[in-house]
Amino acid sequence: MTSSAPIASYETAVTDLLGLVAYGELTAFERLAADSALAPTLAGKAQVGAMAVAEFDHFRKVHARLAELGADPTAAMEPFVGAVDAFHEHTRPTGWLESLVKAYIGDTLTADFYREAARFLDGASRAVVRDVLADMGQAAFVVEHVRAAIAADPKVAGRLALWGRRIMGEALTQAQQIAIRRPALASLLAGVITAADAEAGDDLDLDRMLTRLTEGHGARMATLGLSA
Amino acid sequence: MTSSAPIASYETAVTDLLGLVAYGELTAFERLAADSALAPTLAGKAQVGAMAVAEFDHFRKVHARLAELGADPTAAMEPFVGAVDAFHEHTRPTGWLESLVKAYIGDTLTADFYREAARFLDGASRAVVRDVLADMGQAAFVVEHVRAAIAADPKVAGRLALWGRRIMGEALTQAQQIAIRRPALASLLAGVITAADAEAGDDLDLDRMLTRLTEGHGARMATLGLSA
Repeated sequence: MTSSAPIASYETAVTDLLGLVAYGELTAFERLAADSALAPTLAGKAQVGAMAVAEFDHFRKVHARLAELGADPTAAMEPFVGAVDAFHEHTRPTGWLESLVKAYIGDTLTADFYREAARFLDGASRAVVRDVLADMGQAAFVVEHVRAAIAADPKVAGRLALWGRRIMGEALTQAQQIAIRRPALASLLAGVITAADAEAGDDLDLDRMLTRLTEGHGARMATLGLSA
Repeated sequence: MTSSAPIASYETAVTDLLGLVAYGELTAFERLAADSALAPTLAGKAQVGAMAVAEFDHFRKVHARLAELGADPTAAMEPFVGAVDAFHEHTRPTGWLESLVKAYIGDTLTADFYREAARFLDGASRAVVRDVLADMGQAAFVVEHVRAAIAADPKVAGRLALWGRRIMGEALTQAQQIAIRRPALASLLAGVITAADAEAGDDLDLDRMLTRLTEGHGARMATLGLSA
């Protein structure tokens, strides 16, 4: 913040972060809703549908915050279309269980990321991100489905563990692409640029954040009964 | 109602109607959300996404009314899965404009049908259907998009008019299938079975209802700039 040659302003960085979150939620909505067609039961369709609708509500909230900040929400999302779409193209579920595992990883990993990122934000943006966070965790129903599928056919575990690794790998690949192309956002997440009223602590290290996200992912895979 | 050998009870008929509406809204949600991937702009994605989310909210309301009536909502939807899925399979949009036209026809035709059907229902079920109705009309934004596309390339009008006819034809085909297989529902819509406190007037004729729905559809196609 006090650098004599700042590479980017907090405004650019927060617009990037919210643009990424908005587009991520919009596509999560779209993909989940489409995946509900894979559900073998009407109850499953309704559960995944409800999750998709929650994602759209998150999109609306973040979109509204971008407008409040004076940003053009569409322009803010645009830089992330390529990476987010590529993530989904490379992790297209071929069946209901894969779709559930992806929903669960997406929900929990995103929540962890929002928790990390919120600390660097101005109070009002932080409140929006935490409001979205409070509404997450809707994929918890997935755990019993996946565990039951593994109990019924233990071979399923190996295949789904590979699938989980592919999702996490693709998420890290696209995150790296984004960090390279959006230095302001990378600086925000590294604690180099923060809001004046940010809550950021002293553990400001992008590598350590990624390590925490990866560890959280590993713990969740174990919850599903899968090796990370 | 006073027949000495009633073919079905009002309870069976209203469960059928609400089951059909619930499954119709659930699949409309699913298909629209998936179609939003066809949107050429992020604004278009968000508009179709918002419509899809409204459909899911309708599904939830009708689902809740089924539960209130003591029906198993999943069992109530089940008989309509075949016909509704077939409708969507046979009217799969191949592009954004087709998706918009389908959304517009679906929204307006369904609203007309709900208005017709509501008159035969008990007060509480009627209130739920009218509550859903009050939230419809979200596809109005489609009109300017389609008219603009036709203005830019008049050849588009012929293709989309055919598309509109295919959608209406398929809707009528599936409606007929449903009427054959669900005599209680057909009797309700013909005014043979109604709730004790139904509002039904004296124009109780299934053929005339279908004529009104077809005329309404024709008027809407004209609004889009298409021949019916």
